[in-house]
Amino acid sequence: MSKVTFAIIAAAGAATGAAATAAFYSTSSTKKETSPSITTTTTTTTTGPPRPAPLPPVSGIPYPAVAAQRPVDPSGIFQYGFPGPVADLRPAASLTSSFDRRTRNPHWVAEHLTPQSLANNNADRKHSVFVEDITIPEMFRAKLKDYFRSGYDRGHQVPAADAKWSQEAMDDTFALSNMCPQVGDGFNRDYWAHFEDFCRRLTKSYPSVRVVTGPLYLPKKEADGKWRVSYEVIGSPPNVAVPTHFYKVIFAEDGQLGGKVALGAFVLPNAVIANNKPLGDFEVPVEVVERASGLEFAAKLDPVRRRRLCQEINCSLVVREYAQKQKAFAKK
Amino acid sequence: MSKVTFAIIAAAGAATGAAATAAFYSTSSTKKETSPSITTTTTTTTTGPPRPAPLPPVSGIPYPAVAAQRPVDPSGIFQYGFPGPVADLRPAASLTSSFDRRTRNPHWVAEHLTPQSLANNNADRKHSVFVEDITIPEMFRAKLKDYFRSGYDRGHQVPAADAKWSQEAMDDTFALSNMCPQVGDGFNRDYWAHFEDFCRRLTKSYPSVRVVTGPLYLPKKEADGKWRVSYEVIGSPPNVAVPTHFYKVIFAEDGQLGGKVALGAFVLPNAVIANNKPLGDFEVPVEVVERASGLEFAAKLDPVRRRRLCQEINCSLVVREYAQKQKAFAKK
Repeated sequence: MSKVTFAIIAAAGAATGAAATAAFYSTSSTKKETSPSITTTTTTTTTGPPRPAPLPPVSGIPYPAVAAQRPVDPSGIFQYGFPGPVADLRPAASLTSSFDRRTRNPHWVAEHLTPQSLANNNADRKHSVFVEDITIPEMFRAKLKDYFRSGYDRGHQVPAADAKWSQEAMDDTFALSNMCPQVGDGFNRDYWAHFEDFCRRLTKSYPSVRVVTGPLYLPKKEADGKWRVSYEVIGSPPNVAVPTHFYKVIFAEDGQLGGKVALGAFVLPNAVIANNKPLGDFEVPVEVVERASGLEFAAKLDPVRRRRLCQEINCSLVVREYAQKQKAFAKK
Repeated sequence: MSKVTFAIIAAAGAATGAAATAAFYSTSSTKKETSPSITTTTTTTTTGPPRPAPLPPVSGIPYPAVAAQRPVDPSGIFQYGFPGPVADLRPAASLTSSFDRRTRNPHWVAEHLTPQSLANNNADRKHSVFVEDITIPEMFRAKLKDYFRSGYDRGHQVPAADAKWSQEAMDDTFALSNMCPQVGDGFNRDYWAHFEDFCRRLTKSYPSVRVVTGPLYLPKKEADGKWRVSYEVIGSPPNVAVPTHFYKVIFAEDGQLGGKVALGAFVLPNAVIANNKPLGDFEVPVEVVERASGLEFAAKLDPVRRRRLCQEINCSLVVREYAQKQKAFAKK
């Protein structure tokens, strides 16, 4: 089997093979054709003048005035559906997220913390179960079996502990669209957990805290001098990417309409991190996360409103206190 | 410098460092705050009932009826802008494309070929120049300098030769948002070029041919039994991903409204391929490309309309004839 073939099979999963091919293409040539319902995919809110179309295809992209002179209609492909990317926005009780259908991880997951939301304790994670997100089309979904025996944790992006204000809110955090494969001991269960606690503790200083969390796939320089992105893909067939790093972008708000926003951005490797490593070592400008992720986090935030989180407060973890809390929680 | 640090710097590019940090965060604390114009990002066309908001943030996601009982507003992050992914749709004369801000390559580029469009010869590639696509925000853009001395060709996804019907149309194909880094000798300048010629020759059998082309980043099984995606990133700092493979999804239409569509999907490695390798070896079900890319190509195409391209016509390259044509063209 050639190198090409196995890579393709890996990507294809169960769909490869003659059976899948037969299922995909119609073999019926006798069925009467019905007039199709041509649907346009509109991607802008303005529409151009109607275009004298030499061919049936219809598209929603407005055409410049010269369009009528053109012999082709490249946007006509939309008659077969919009290829994507599709953001797969998920507005849930405790989070809003966008899913990356190629890596089977979220692009980003946003949450909101307040002193009030954290004061409530109406949920228990013992009642929550990990579930596949059926709002994602089956072929693009992360599966429970992908994580099984992978060696990685199903790592919450919005932590369960941030959604104790209702069982429904906590349950929402257990969908796999809120997970990425994370190193367990030394990261998800340790340094990363302390970092999540740091975010919660910010509500002692700020009445409203927003946190956006997600995966990164960063290049590193190899022995031959070239930069390469390299990451594992778990599942059989391989399905879910293992991020090399994770980011959090934090918006600590003063609670005033149009008020000040203390921004903090952090990038941590998906690897064991010693608890005595200062959190400040992982602070980066927000733009670093933007360049690496292809996302924008503060495009509409006026620079005059911005402050730097780690200049306003002490950006450090409280490991011991957190460990004690966890033990106390476990005894409940 | 730690492993983490250099990876971050790689991703950050010119933005890293104290100067960038200072530029990003406001240092003005005396400027009078003005009441901000809060803009909502609407991601659906329906809106929910107005929500009694305990906090200033406003968002465009409709809330379920229980929303008023919730202590948090995760979608309020949209007040600072929609993080993405943004499709960066580019409707040009000769192509329609979507750009991937993380890899700095297109997600897909769609074109349309007809016997008429190929019959015209009103353009010369000597008059076209490679240009950066300034419709993409600077930080997410592929740069000319990224390709310089990278060892890779600036590989057209929609070929220049498909847009000879006007100089403007051909110029459109020279934007870097229509390029990916491709292996030159043995691929872009050989097998891949013959494959592009195959697509043009389809217009001898079909009055209307659509081709969607784009990059893939496929995993392969390594010596330790694990599957990994690994690809080079070119530029200094590293900026543009080098795809492991490329796909073409071909829609050969019979020219009738709601008529039959012969579908063909192909996945080729970004590597030297011998000219005597049969094209059929690279044929895959469309779903293989969909799973690997996270995109959908025929969601709205009724299965009864589908045919399989390589059952209708002979899917093979014509290498010699093409080489002669190229020589003849070069002599002009």
